[in-house]
Amino acid sequence: MSRITLAHGGGGMLQNDLIRNEIASRFANSMLSALPDGATTPEDLVISTDSFVITPRFFPGGNIGELAVTGSVNDVLMAGGIPRYLTCSLIIEEGLELEELRTILDSMQSTAEKCQVKIITGDTKVVPQGAGDGLYINTTAVGFKRDGMILGKERLQAGDKIIVSRTVGEHGLSVMANRCQLNCGTLISDCAPLIAAVESLHKTAGCGLKFMRDATRGGVLGITGEIFENTPFGAVVYEDVLPVLPQAAAVAKLLGIDPGFSACEGCMVAVVNKEIAEKCVSALHSVPGCSAAAVIGEVSAENPMVRLRSSWGAVRKLQVPAGDQLPRIC
Amino acid sequence: MSRITLAHGGGGMLQNDLIRNEIASRFANSMLSALPDGATTPEDLVISTDSFVITPRFFPGGNIGELAVTGSVNDVLMAGGIPRYLTCSLIIEEGLELEELRTILDSMQSTAEKCQVKIITGDTKVVPQGAGDGLYINTTAVGFKRDGMILGKERLQAGDKIIVSRTVGEHGLSVMANRCQLNCGTLISDCAPLIAAVESLHKTAGCGLKFMRDATRGGVLGITGEIFENTPFGAVVYEDVLPVLPQAAAVAKLLGIDPGFSACEGCMVAVVNKEIAEKCVSALHSVPGCSAAAVIGEVSAENPMVRLRSSWGAVRKLQVPAGDQLPRIC
Repeated sequence: MSRITLAHGGGGMLQNDLIRNEIASRFANSMLSALPDGATTPEDLVISTDSFVITPRFFPGGNIGELAVTGSVNDVLMAGGIPRYLTCSLIIEEGLELEELRTILDSMQSTAEKCQVKIITGDTKVVPQGAGDGLYINTTAVGFKRDGMILGKERLQAGDKIIVSRTVGEHGLSVMANRCQLNCGTLISDCAPLIAAVESLHKTAGCGLKFMRDATRGGVLGITGEIFENTPFGAVVYEDVLPVLPQAAAVAKLLGIDPGFSACEGCMVAVVNKEIAEKCVSALHSVPGCSAAAVIGEVSAENPMVRLRSSWGAVRKLQVPAGDQLPRIC
Repeated sequence: MSRITLAHGGGGMLQNDLIRNEIASRFANSMLSALPDGATTPEDLVISTDSFVITPRFFPGGNIGELAVTGSVNDVLMAGGIPRYLTCSLIIEEGLELEELRTILDSMQSTAEKCQVKIITGDTKVVPQGAGDGLYINTTAVGFKRDGMILGKERLQAGDKIIVSRTVGEHGLSVMANRCQLNCGTLISDCAPLIAAVESLHKTAGCGLKFMRDATRGGVLGITGEIFENTPFGAVVYEDVLPVLPQAAAVAKLLGIDPGFSACEGCMVAVVNKEIAEKCVSALHSVPGCSAAAVIGEVSAENPMVRLRSSWGAVRKLQVPAGDQLPRIC
C-alpha cells in the first residue's frame, strides 16, 4: 500500500492499521494510547477532536453542524469527561450558499446549548471550487474528568456484560437511504448527545462501569470488535437481541447492509460488571431515546476474539470489515 | 452577498465581516469575543484551533505539518498561554502518497517536540478524489494561562509602542514565489514557534506587555489595522522602519505584493508601554531569528484609524484589503 484509499477512512481494519502504524506510533505518548475517543491529561482535562465530512450535509434527523457538536461532545463523555468547551473550525468551499452556512451554524449553537458546552474559539478557511466539498467542520471538545469514573480496557473481566444504549445503525442507514433517494419514511439518524445515558450509567453502576464507546464508524459490532483487540479477552454477542428498529431492518435489507456494522451517532456500547447489568439497562429505559437499551453480550475469557451467536445457537467469528460499508457518514 | 467567495478566507475585511456577523454573533459568549487568537476559560485554560489548507503542502522552509503545529502553538502564546497539548485531525484526499503523509507526520512530531507540546489525540477522515486537495490538517492547542501576563485591547494607551519581532512577509512571499515557480534563492518561510520571543518580551516588559498577535493572514499591516478596530485609539506606523529582507523586497516587487500585507508564520506584533519599548527590542535582538526586531509605530489618541508614515513624511490611511493578496497561504 503506497497511497491512501477511501477504505482507510471507513472505520475498519485498514483505518485501524493506518492510525496505529502511521499516526499514533509517531506521536507516541501515554495519553494518546489509552482510550480511543479522547485523551486525558495529567491535569484531568479530557480532550477529543473530530473532523466532519459527511455527505449530504443535511440528512434525515440532522445536519453536519448538529453532528459536529454531538460527535465531539460524545467522545469526551465516552472518555470519562464532562464536556465544557468546544472549538469550531470551518473549511468552506468557495460558492457555498451563505444561507446554508447560517442554518448549519444555528444548529451548532442550539446543539451546544443542549449539551451545555460553549463554542469559545474557531477558525475559517475558504478553499477554491473543486478543492473541497461544500463544508468540512472540525470541532475539538475540552472537558474535565468526572470524579469516581475509572474507565479502561485493563478493567475488563470475564463475565462482564456488554450493553447498548438504544436501537442500532440508524445514522448510517438513514444517510445511505437518503443518498440512494430511498424514501425511508420514519427512519432518521439517531444523532444525539449521550449526556443523559452516561449520567444514568454512572449513577447506577458507579465503579461497576468499566468501558464506554460510542458506536460511530464501524457500528456497534465493529466497535465491539475493536474494544477487545489487544486484550486477553474475547466476547460473545447475541445477534438476536441487538435492538434494531423495523424500518431500519427494512432499509438494511434493501441496501444489503448489516445494521450491526452501520454507524450510530447517539448510541453507545458500555461494558459493566455482570451483577449490575440488568439494573443499568432498567435505568437506561427511563432515559429519553434509550427505551430499547439491552444487554447484548458478555466478556469471555475463552477466546481472544469476538464471536456472534445467532438465534439458532450457531456461533461464528466476528469479521471486522477491512474498509467501510459506507464512506463519509460523519 | 449570498455565497462564500475565496476573499472570505483571505484575512481582509470580508473575512472579518463573515466571522463577526455570521459566526461569532451566533456563538456569542464572553470567551469568544475577547482575544482574537485564542480563548481563555474561567479555569485559565487557553485554547486555540486552526485548519491548514496551504498549497503547496511543501514550501521553501517548511511543510503543512510543521505549519499546523507552529500555527496553533503560536496562537495560544499570543493569547497569553503556555501551550501544552495538541490535537491532530486529518482530512486526507483519496490517493495521497503514504510516503508524503509520513514525512508530514514526522514534521509534526519533531515540531511538537521543539514546542514542548504533546500531540495527544486525533481523527482521520478520507474523502474521495475531487472532494479535497491532498491533505487538510486541523490542530487545536490547549495550554495554561501564564501568571502575570494580562493582555487585552482595553490596556492600550496613547503613546504605547508597536513592535515587530523580526523581518516581515517571508511566509507569504516564499509560498507565492514557489507557486509562480520563481527561484527565490535564499527566501524561505519564517514558519517558527514564537516561544522564545514571547519569553523574552514577558521577562523584559512584565506587565508593560499589553497585546500580542502573530502576523499571519493579513500580514503585519493587516493585523495592525485589525488590532485598532473597535478601539478608541489609532496608530501611526513608520513604513520605512518595517524590517524587510532584501530578497523578500525583491520578490515582493516582482509579484506586486506589499510585504507589509504578506503573511508571516513566525513574526509577531506586540504593543508595549513606551518606556520599555527599546529595552524589549534590545532583548529580542538576542533571541534567535529576531535580530531585526524593531519599533515600527505607536498608538495614537488622535484618530481612530491606522496611518502609515512614509520615509518622506507623507501620511496616508492604512487600507485593510477587502480580500486576500494570496489565497491558501496557511
